[in-house]
Amino acid sequence: MSDFSYVGIPTPMIDGPAKVTGNLKYTGDLKLAGMLHARFVLSTYAHANISGIDSAAALAVPGVQRVLTADDLPEVVPSSRAMLMLARDRVIFVGQPIAMVLADSPAAAADGAELVEVDYEPLATVTSMDAALAEDAPVIWPNGIPTGAEDEAAHGADTGGESEEDEGEPSNIAGKSHMAKGDVAAAFAEADVIVERTFETPMVHQSSIETQGWVVQPNPLNGGVTMWGSLQSPFGARLDVANILGVPESDVNVYGMPVGGGFGAKFGLYEPLIALVSVTVGRPVSLILTRGEELLTTNPAPALRVQAKLGFRSDGSLLAMQSNVLADTGVYPSGLGGFAAMQFASFYRCDNLLLESTNVITNKQSVGAYRAPTSPTAFMAVETLFDEAAAALGIDPVELRLKNAARAGDPAPGGGDFPVIGMVETLEAAREHPLWRNREESRAQGHGVGIAIGGWMGGLEPGASVCKLNRDGVLQVQIGTADLSGTPTSFALLAAEAYGVEPERVRFVYSDTDSAPYGGGVGGSKTMYTLGAAVIRAAEEARRQTLAIAAEEFEVSAEDLEIVDGRVQVRGFPDRSISLGELAGKAMTFDGKYEPVHGNGRQAITDRAPSFCAQIAEVEVDEETGDVNLLNLAVVQDVGRAINPLAVEGQMQGGAVQGVGWALLEEMRYDEDGQLLTGSWMDYAMPDAVQAAPIDTQIVEVPSVSGPYGARGVGEPPVIPTVAAIANAVAHATGLRMTQTPMTAPRVLEALQAR
Amino acid sequence: MSDFSYVGIPTPMIDGPAKVTGNLKYTGDLKLAGMLHARFVLSTYAHANISGIDSAAALAVPGVQRVLTADDLPEVVPSSRAMLMLARDRVIFVGQPIAMVLADSPAAAADGAELVEVDYEPLATVTSMDAALAEDAPVIWPNGIPTGAEDEAAHGADTGGESEEDEGEPSNIAGKSHMAKGDVAAAFAEADVIVERTFETPMVHQSSIETQGWVVQPNPLNGGVTMWGSLQSPFGARLDVANILGVPESDVNVYGMPVGGGFGAKFGLYEPLIALVSVTVGRPVSLILTRGEELLTTNPAPALRVQAKLGFRSDGSLLAMQSNVLADTGVYPSGLGGFAAMQFASFYRCDNLLLESTNVITNKQSVGAYRAPTSPTAFMAVETLFDEAAAALGIDPVELRLKNAARAGDPAPGGGDFPVIGMVETLEAAREHPLWRNREESRAQGHGVGIAIGGWMGGLEPGASVCKLNRDGVLQVQIGTADLSGTPTSFALLAAEAYGVEPERVRFVYSDTDSAPYGGGVGGSKTMYTLGAAVIRAAEEARRQTLAIAAEEFEVSAEDLEIVDGRVQVRGFPDRSISLGELAGKAMTFDGKYEPVHGNGRQAITDRAPSFCAQIAEVEVDEETGDVNLLNLAVVQDVGRAINPLAVEGQMQGGAVQGVGWALLEEMRYDEDGQLLTGSWMDYAMPDAVQAAPIDTQIVEVPSVSGPYGARGVGEPPVIPTVAAIANAVAHATGLRMTQTPMTAPRVLEALQAR
Repeated sequence: MSDFSYVGIPTPMIDGPAKVTGNLKYTGDLKLAGMLHARFVLSTYAHANISGIDSAAALAVPGVQRVLTADDLPEVVPSSRAMLMLARDRVIFVGQPIAMVLADSPAAAADGAELVEVDYEPLATVTSMDAALAEDAPVIWPNGIPTGAEDEAAHGADTGGESEEDEGEPSNIAGKSHMAKGDVAAAFAEADVIVERTFETPMVHQSSIETQGWVVQPNPLNGGVTMWGSLQSPFGARLDVANILGVPESDVNVYGMPVGGGFGAKFGLYEPLIALVSVTVGRPVSLILTRGEELLTTNPAPALRVQAKLGFRSDGSLLAMQSNVLADTGVYPSGLGGFAAMQFASFYRCDNLLLESTNVITNKQSVGAYRAPTSPTAFMAVETLFDEAAAALGIDPVELRLKNAARAGDPAPGGGDFPVIGMVETLEAAREHPLWRNREESRAQGHGVGIAIGGWMGGLEPGASVCKLNRDGVLQVQIGTADLSGTPTSFALLAAEAYGVEPERVRFVYSDTDSAPYGGGVGGSKTMYTLGAAVIRAAEEARRQTLAIAAEEFEVSAEDLEIVDGRVQVRGFPDRSISLGELAGKAMTFDGKYEPVHGNGRQAITDRAPSFCAQIAEVEVDEETGDVNLLNLAVVQDVGRAINPLAVEGQMQGGAVQGVGWALLEEMRYDEDGQLLTGSWMDYAMPDAVQAAPIDTQIVEVPSVSGPYGARGVGEPPVIPTVAAIANAVAHATGLRMTQTPMTAPRVLEALQAR
Repeated sequence: MSDFSYVGIPTPMIDGPAKVTGNLKYTGDLKLAGMLHARFVLSTYAHANISGIDSAAALAVPGVQRVLTADDLPEVVPSSRAMLMLARDRVIFVGQPIAMVLADSPAAAADGAELVEVDYEPLATVTSMDAALAEDAPVIWPNGIPTGAEDEAAHGADTGGESEEDEGEPSNIAGKSHMAKGDVAAAFAEADVIVERTFETPMVHQSSIETQGWVVQPNPLNGGVTMWGSLQSPFGARLDVANILGVPESDVNVYGMPVGGGFGAKFGLYEPLIALVSVTVGRPVSLILTRGEELLTTNPAPALRVQAKLGFRSDGSLLAMQSNVLADTGVYPSGLGGFAAMQFASFYRCDNLLLESTNVITNKQSVGAYRAPTSPTAFMAVETLFDEAAAALGIDPVELRLKNAARAGDPAPGGGDFPVIGMVETLEAAREHPLWRNREESRAQGHGVGIAIGGWMGGLEPGASVCKLNRDGVLQVQIGTADLSGTPTSFALLAAEAYGVEPERVRFVYSDTDSAPYGGGVGGSKTMYTLGAAVIRAAEEARRQTLAIAAEEFEVSAEDLEIVDGRVQVRGFPDRSISLGELAGKAMTFDGKYEPVHGNGRQAITDRAPSFCAQIAEVEVDEETGDVNLLNLAVVQDVGRAINPLAVEGQMQGGAVQGVGWALLEEMRYDEDGQLLTGSWMDYAMPDAVQAAPIDTQIVEVPSVSGPYGARGVGEPPVIPTVAAIANAVAHATGLRMTQTPMTAPRVLEALQAR
């Protein structure tokens, strides 16, 4: 039997009915009095000077009120992608905002945007890393690459290593990183088996169902604004907007609206621009991106090229790991290349490491965080090479991983030692999965079965929560962040468990930044892990306060009280009881003599709880067409403690489906002029329900030390190993090592033919 | 020098600019998508059966969407005035809502309401207390008077005494109260001087600048609603609305909007009806009362008739006090008569009391709380009689009051003893006021000078507050109630004082009931007294949390730290310091190692801090016309501690101006058919700036034990003694004892002529 009353019970999303009936209001549903609808005019050139902008035709459209260009806005140093306002004189990627049309209706704004005429003088364009690194390459930032890049890597874990900035001539190199440990050259010299390959993955887009959107209401008195948005970090948006407006953050209030998918893309992009526009025109402004804009001008995952090399002794012990990552970060710098190099080498025991990266600027849209940033690529590299090494060594692939897997006490990336982790337990559970056990039968049928594991350190951020008791006996719990993945349901289970009431008596409130306790951003698989602890503490304090009131009412000690079926009762005397609602009411009335129940929970957990996901893929490869048909996918994940198994399985399935997209389908393709060829969902292929194959989820629970009831972060691990598992399955079926994604039929066919 | 850094500094209202520039949004400014505008159809008869309602013409008005009558709503037991929905079959007062027109615009709703035809069958009408109490009077509630009346008395203090319900035949008597102490008959027999008179005051209307208004958005999923309203008690509205809708209060969220005047009238009236209407039609609905509706169909103060009698020994000691109050409560019962009887005898030492009341039902609109409910009348009685007795005894009127004034340790009304109170100090300060010292010179000029004092026990209610520190170094303090009187500014001074920063660094947030800590209702002069303590505690906890972070940063003990100019610094080492904003940021970021600063303050103060206001009026009475010209008014009040002297003086002036209205101008007049004759501000006379006379305020500070830094309730006392002070001034000038208000020229002239 479980030690818990509510934690661990599969519980449907409490806000599911509101979502499926359309009653939940999203940012795009908001209408403010006097609100203007905004539409971008986006650059159609990847690199060009702007010689003129003619807004006359646009302004003639009925309903169009303003056409703003850079001249209408203050000059802002573009110290980060979010601080890049409307283009001034020059554009550097297709999709860069040049002008903004403001109109009384979305249709008028769109019509107006079509009619703004921009005169371009095309410039030489750099759209690939190789071209960008060529000696005579045009330099995209001749006056120096902006500093202060968004640290998307913090999304997950420390990037580690040291960064080297080129101090010399202007170039398209935005930064390099270098991390060394031990003596890699000597270790490779000593190795019995060396495996090495170069892997490439393209830009891939988060493609949430809900596009990005914001509504802003200016406050003419203090120069601040109120903002509503589909945001992963309302408090982060508050700070960004305050900075651009030059007001204290307390003059900005942000409502984090329900989010229809984030995946890292909604950590901040056009908040400063739209706030500045709204203040400039002195009217409420709504900007809801179209699907095309979403694909053209947001922050997808970077393209990566990973040169990777592993060296083993004949007994299977890992001697050396080396990675050199080239990251195509589009027009803005990013530290993601270094993070990829680090992720490659984070979870196997190895004393000799050489991890290097170069971040390269190209005339393409900037990049950002996407669920476990860079990890599908980094683990494609390490897990493909482990598979090859196992074959070369004659060791079972799972055994080879187990032999080298990190365990508690091993050095962890970024310093310190690993706490209790479940890498071994996850691999052991995967080893027992029928899909793996039957892999030779499967191959006998012409299929292939591959396995891979992925690891994630997990993010951390302080946060707080508040827990009130209402006169209806409902526990109202307040947090100040967004919901990406059904967390209110899991939080409700935590609060119910900690306070001692049924989850049906718990309500969750997501408040605006003025009213909410600090909640931090939602990302890095940290929401349940960190804020969950705050919720538990708030509920526990509310319980203590509740029992203190009842103790005074019944003239007993609080220790002699229990909460049963929504009533506080004296242990052993069920007739001496009071309902929670009545008790709350005694503190919520004129002449009440008790302080209202109002528990406060704060946390600043500093221990990480790394989590692991292993996946087993079974594929069929059509050798005539190159088509890879995913037949089965098993997802085995250590979640520490499954607070709500339904939500956990949902995350495991969702992550794996996105992994399938990475592996088989998704690619932001650009032509040599930097034009995006996959600018709609007709062209940019994401997995549908059939392509995603049957997914079997298996939860492993190795409790963490600091997480709520042992929980670990869940969101990111399941996207990590899918590419590698499918690639290893393709190799199992065909002998072919695919090193480039997506593994589309033409690409596989070409490889088969080259074999 | 003051012991305080910020408390006591006269500080302009921090939200003044937003108010005077029109940037603050009131309920009437709100527009929701799809919102319908509501307009009442009000009864034009005081008592009638409804034989038919024809909505056809109204429905033909373009934009009119619905005309609702009682048939469209569930039957609800009218257990309180707020639970009286649309009239079913019978109306019992002029202004009773019969139907509600819902339209796309306010104009269409008004046009529609004009066209709804109601067929009435008039019934015998009872519009005066005498008629209501006559043997053969028509009984307004033949099936029994509703119980569960709103306990407006709780607004101020305990009603005390015992209530006797007539259990016999149906009548128009809604309830009686009786409280006796000692032996009144024997005491009067022993008295050397007995003074007695009967006093009468009419219904008087609160008449806020902003009329009452609500906007409701139904939630089709849970049957609850979101409500925005001009409310004195958002949490009270939440409960009322939940009750009518039959949902848990947690399914209702209430935004307390900025309030343009409350004075007791906005403690709950049409919230349940408008919520029910909104849910019935499934659309957002806005109801903003017109000025005429405000006067016809809200809850003004009751009309009172007080038979009062005092007995003194020749040395001036008070032997006996007797009052018998008749209260005209309109169509709904109210406990206000008993409260008036109690207030009459609460603040002078007296061992023999007989206090009785009868609450009478009439065919007029129901009554409610109005700033220090019933006290202008009760103190008109006691303070007039003290004045007369002083003359009869040959004792100075102030000395007679001082001799009998309550002091700490004397028995207090409602049980227990008085804590430290400033009745004596207030009288002593008034005695020294030039207006009083020069009263005989004034009379020599043909003027009259009168003095009176009023006392108020003060309300109590638990409440909580939250205090956060933002990354801009701003302290954001959150409470869950409304602002009637500039309390945010005073709260900011408290938080600044307790935390140790300049008030400019403090921001106040009034949140919705979902997001706010419980705040209770704003009334009873308790907001600063009770919630102020919660604000201080929250700020103190935030300070402790702040210093704990800094202590860890600087590796010193928290005791060695101080907050100076927005920085935490090590005492004696000003270069070892960190700004509050930077410090907050360390707890509001990825990988932060400190818990966010989030202080929690709760209070359930159970000690009252009675407060006193003495007033001195100088008048000139035109013996030819009867016109009473108020020349000067001095307001001397013990406020315990003036947190913000500007706000305190504003309350003293505002209360006194309303007192002038009671004394000289204001009266809800009805004809014998129950038609309101003063149904607009053209007819209902309130004091203008000239009529209010120069008002001199003088603050007395006798610190309370439990209030924030010694503060006492401030709002209600200054309205209490004005009537009596002016009546005593009239007597001083003319020898005439006025016993009825308003003391209009015709009424005074009649008394002069009868003299």
